[in-house]
Amino acid sequence: MIGIFDSGVGGMTVARAIEQLCPGFPLVYLGDLARTPYGSKSPAMITEYSHRNTDFLLRQGAKLIVIACNSAASAASVFLRNHYSQAIVDVIFPAVAKAASVSATGRIGVIGTRATINSGLYEQRLQDARPGCKVYSQACPLLVPLVEEGWLEQRETKMIVKRYLRPLRDKQIDTLILGCTHYPLLKKTIGPRIGRKVQIIDSSVEVALHLKTMLDNDARLRSELYAPGEPSRFFVSDIPSPVHALAENIFGRTVLLEKTDV
Amino acid sequence: MIGIFDSGVGGMTVARAIEQLCPGFPLVYLGDLARTPYGSKSPAMITEYSHRNTDFLLRQGAKLIVIACNSAASAASVFLRNHYSQAIVDVIFPAVAKAASVSATGRIGVIGTRATINSGLYEQRLQDARPGCKVYSQACPLLVPLVEEGWLEQRETKMIVKRYLRPLRDKQIDTLILGCTHYPLLKKTIGPRIGRKVQIIDSSVEVALHLKTMLDNDARLRSELYAPGEPSRFFVSDIPSPVHALAENIFGRTVLLEKTDV
Repeated sequence: MIGIFDSGVGGMTVARAIEQLCPGFPLVYLGDLARTPYGSKSPAMITEYSHRNTDFLLRQGAKLIVIACNSAASAASVFLRNHYSQAIVDVIFPAVAKAASVSATGRIGVIGTRATINSGLYEQRLQDARPGCKVYSQACPLLVPLVEEGWLEQRETKMIVKRYLRPLRDKQIDTLILGCTHYPLLKKTIGPRIGRKVQIIDSSVEVALHLKTMLDNDARLRSELYAPGEPSRFFVSDIPSPVHALAENIFGRTVLLEKTDV
Repeated sequence: MIGIFDSGVGGMTVARAIEQLCPGFPLVYLGDLARTPYGSKSPAMITEYSHRNTDFLLRQGAKLIVIACNSAASAASVFLRNHYSQAIVDVIFPAVAKAASVSATGRIGVIGTRATINSGLYEQRLQDARPGCKVYSQACPLLVPLVEEGWLEQRETKMIVKRYLRPLRDKQIDTLILGCTHYPLLKKTIGPRIGRKVQIIDSSVEVALHLKTMLDNDARLRSELYAPGEPSRFFVSDIPSPVHALAENIFGRTVLLEKTDV
């Protein structure tokens, strides 16, 4: 199975994209709702949680791990790659590759949680992928709570998005990376506020496309993971009351959430 | 020592009030920043965390436990009182007693996290304290993230506060309980939006006053807890980068935060 973890249900945008692009490859998902959000926690804490989440997914039979959470990928991807022999796919690299290739001017914006932006990982990888590019980053800590409240098009949300994006707009970026799995749900609000000419890169879609390419090019990996009849499973470490509605909203269909201790 | 726990640093409003009202009584504080916030988690999860926090404080020598977090008090106060022989003081009861006594019309509003409001505990205790009163409750899930961002007087914050308070204002309440330790920091924003005639009850201040009365009336408890030379200690289960500034802002002076695993 393909293992995917996230701090909560935001990573279901990644799971959904993988399910659509890679049919026949069952998923095992873990949303760490008992400790969500990760974006405001320390790198050491996020690394510890990511370690536990990965152990859990491997015990469930995962042969490859997707770090769907940008905060976890920022803090823990180096640690996880050093610690495990399994393939680790993180949500950051594919978005970086895409942004580096599509930007005309090399002026690239990144928005994410405080943990993601403070890590500097997007900036560092963008410099590796496209030396000399200009990267402008902005932490947007209020966007996750707004999305989790379902305030996608409220006037207050639009004002807050506008306030966060103003510095990036002033820098005349031509490409913007949505460096958090919650942000694609705000795409309609973000688009007009960053400017119609700016290309928006959705890290969830890019990681699913990257995984598809990996599977297309690697027969061994493909045969190890391909199991068409087998159903995907969705685990969460806590089930607060609004989570079913939120998960359905994000995933686009009913999902059976199984409670587990991590 | 007096043990106090909270999901994060919001409970420092309680610790500060106790320090001011009860000098000579050292505190041991635990902020569970590794799992914060509690207000969006399930009652079972919050109870488990509260149990662990209480065990930790007792191991540090606490002889009395103050549940400074409204979400924890809502979910776990009954469990903790059944499980431990030590005195458990929760942040809800004193605010309820105050509101029940000062309201002229018996029309009382309560704002808090989703966990606090969904528990119905404020409503239930208000009915016990003042049978026949009318209680109007409103979950305000975005206020904690706004306070933690330091957005205390931003235009967006004022609009969101106004939106949350509108239903309570329409009900013509004469008393409003701030049922979350973060909300006193928004008092200047809340006051004019709920209406100048509405009395605002700060659960942090009320619990400190209640504790002072307990100490004044109970010589045994007083002698057990009084230790004037001894310093208070502040533990946190994670130290994310903005926490020192936030703690100082809330506590009103520099505090040494010690990291611990709970």
